[in-house]
Formats: sequence, structure tokens, C-alpha cells
Amino acid sequence: MARAEAYEPTARTIPTRARDRAAYDQETVHAILDTGYVCHLGFVRDGSPVVLPTLYGRVGDRLYLHGSTGSRPLRMAGETPDAGLEVCVTVTHVDGLVLARSAFHHSINYRCVVVHGTAHQVTDPEEKKAALDALVDHVLPGRAADSRPGNAKELAATAVIRLDLREVSAKIRSGGPSDEPEDLALPYWSGVLPVAPVHGAPIAADDLAPGIPEPAYLSAR
Amino acid sequence: MARAEAYEPTARTIPTRARDRAAYDQETVHAILDTGYVCHLGFVRDGSPVVLPTLYGRVGDRLYLHGSTGSRPLRMAGETPDAGLEVCVTVTHVDGLVLARSAFHHSINYRCVVVHGTAHQVTDPEEKKAALDALVDHVLPGRAADSRPGNAKELAATAVIRLDLREVSAKIRSGGPSDEPEDLALPYWSGVLPVAPVHGAPIAADDLAPGIPEPAYLSAR
Repeated sequence: MARAEAYEPTARTIPTRARDRAAYDQETVHAILDTGYVCHLGFVRDGSPVVLPTLYGRVGDRLYLHGSTGSRPLRMAGETPDAGLEVCVTVTHVDGLVLARSAFHHSINYRCVVVHGTAHQVTDPEEKKAALDALVDHVLPGRAADSRPGNAKELAATAVIRLDLREVSAKIRSGGPSDEPEDLALPYWSGVLPVAPVHGAPIAADDLAPGIPEPAYLSAR
Repeated sequence: MARAEAYEPTARTIPTRARDRAAYDQETVHAILDTGYVCHLGFVRDGSPVVLPTLYGRVGDRLYLHGSTGSRPLRMAGETPDAGLEVCVTVTHVDGLVLARSAFHHSINYRCVVVHGTAHQVTDPEEKKAALDALVDHVLPGRAADSRPGNAKELAATAVIRLDLREVSAKIRSGGPSDEPEDLALPYWSGVLPVAPVHGAPIAADDLAPGIPEPAYLSAR
């Protein structure tokens, strides 16, 4: 069998510790990215780091982020079209709290992807439209086709940036606590408290027109 | 009644848009910080942004983060003790997916806190121990006292950094979709799909000593 496609590790995607938790194969990376829809976007402004939560969508080996044309990172990426904006995009899922006998070995089960690269503003109208559809469908598959598409004014007010998946790594911790052998008999409960995002019952808008059923894709997440 | 204590807004904590979503009062900020335990830590390395997920604890107006003494940001904060490491720490809770009739007005209900500042390594042994207890108790209140405390070797292998809460803002979006009046009659379901982290049943470690009951604090989260 052919070796699975993988991202090439680089100096900054090889962790300084717990290297056994790192993964670079596309399948793992894409699965983590597709499980979530909120990333933390990092960029440098006036020499200082800034981290903001924002939505993202994935199309193949590209991530798309969007925002108001007035938002700082979007504006910064557009001001220097060729250079773009250097960013770090991180997506994290928390899967459980790991309780060890020792305070030291407490941990979190998680899956995370870190993407380093340069974001460029998307100027091609077709790519921009497709990216915005991908953003909506990434959150709820099927929703883009079941809503009013953006009009010219809305598209003009929205900026989209693209980040190619090239310098990418995943990091995963799973399983139970790793206690020291001499601690195993200590009288402290030890194990994992699982955690996962769960959806509540949909809340229809107060002014929802009558006769519109809840769409099936609401239960897709 | 005295005005509630609040963080002073600065050029970088005043959003460029949706200013009505911003909050600076301590009560709101602390409540958002105390609801979570994973932050996204941003810093600049060789001129490039880096964003990593990590645990945090809060003691009054200080955040504590920890890691291996070998981890990059912890090491960087320790290399220049006086200067410290400039960071941005962001904590985000997703509360719901907001489905508008128009693709443009789709949104997310969320609560987030962004902290700008300089992190300094904690060198005082007592402050370090208290910070580590706070980190464990922040995730599960009561757990620090119900586990084996760190020994000298473990404390030496762990670095703690402190970030004072000074340049801080919260941003909150809640409620239903904000559609254009002319879109209200469109035949698209519209409303909010609530989302929240939920804990599963605790999974005891395979090698848990017999006769140890599940502690009550497991249901505190």
C-alpha cells in the first residue's frame, strides 16, 4: 500500500517534547479540522501577538477565513497583497480531563492542529463565493444551499483570506493517566472524565415564518 | 452603588467593529475565564506568530500557565526574566450556531476573553506551588487537595508563567439571528442551535486501586 500523504515536518512543527503525540498525515489533520469550525487565528500587529477566535472552512488543502473588510487581520492581509499576512491558525478539540494520582501527571485528552503560513486575501469573485459557501457548509453541511446567497453589497463588505495547508502538524493525547509505578496504590481516584460539545434542541427565531420545518442538517453536527 | 471594577480599554482592546459586543468589567471577564480551562496562548517566535492550546488557572487578577521547562514559550519567558515574553491569551466558549435567512448574517454565539500582556516566569517556590494548585483546581475544583502534590523533581521540571490581567477585554454575542427586514419571509429555517461542552460518565483507570469511590467534584463541571 502506498504511504499515506503527509505534511513535511519542519523545525517549527516538530514539538520540543512529547513527539509521539505529533502526527503529520493528511487524514488525521483533515479529520481534526473538519470536526471543528472555530479556530484561533494568531498574527503579529505592531510587533505584538494577537489571538482571535474566528470561523474557518476547508477546501482540499486550503483553509478559508472571513471577516468584515474592516477587521484588523483581514485588512492587514489585503494591504500587502503579495506579501500577505503571516499567521498561525490553531484548532483544538478537548476530549477529556485526565486525572492522575499525582498532580504532576494530570493532563487533557485533546486533538489539535497548528497551521503556520501566509494568508492571502481572496480577490477572485468565484473563489470568494465558493469560500463563503465552504465556510457556511463547514459549520452545518447543507446550509449554504438552504439560505439566501450573499448579494453584491454583502460580498463587498466581506473579506476572505486563504491559507494553504503546507506547514501543518496535529497533536493528539488520548487514553488514561500515566502515573509513576510507585503512585498506583495511592488512594486517589484516577481516570478520565470525557468531555465533548453537545447540541441542544434548536431554538426557532421568534419571527420565523410559519410552516418551515426544522431542516435535517441541524442534526448533522 | 459604586461602579463595578473594570479594565481600562486600550487601542488594542477596543474592537474595530461590533463594539456593543465588547465588555471590560471584571465580573464578566472573570466569569468567562472561570468557565473554561483551555486557552490559546499566542507569542512571537523569530518574528512569526505561534498559537498553542494550554491550560490556565486564575488567582485574582493573575493568570497562571504552566508547561515543561523545555517548552518553547516557557523557556522564552525564562530566558529574559526582566523583559518576560509578550503574549496574547484568548479563551473562547462557543454557545450556539446562529442560522439567519441570509448566508451573510450567519453567526456564532460565543463568549471570549482576550488578554494582552507580558508573561513572567514564576521563580518564588511558594507562588509556584500555589499556581500549580490553582491550575489543577481551575479544571476541577477540589482536585489539588485530592492528589499527590508535586515533589522537588517534578516542580523543577515544571515552569510556570504569570500574566497580570490589565489589558483585557471580553466579547460576547448572544441571542437570535439579525436578518434584514426584507428577508424575514424567506422560506429558510432560522434560529439558534445551542452548543455546550458536556461531560460523559467518568472512566476509571484500568489499574485503579480497589475501593476508591468516584469523588463528588467530578460532577462539579
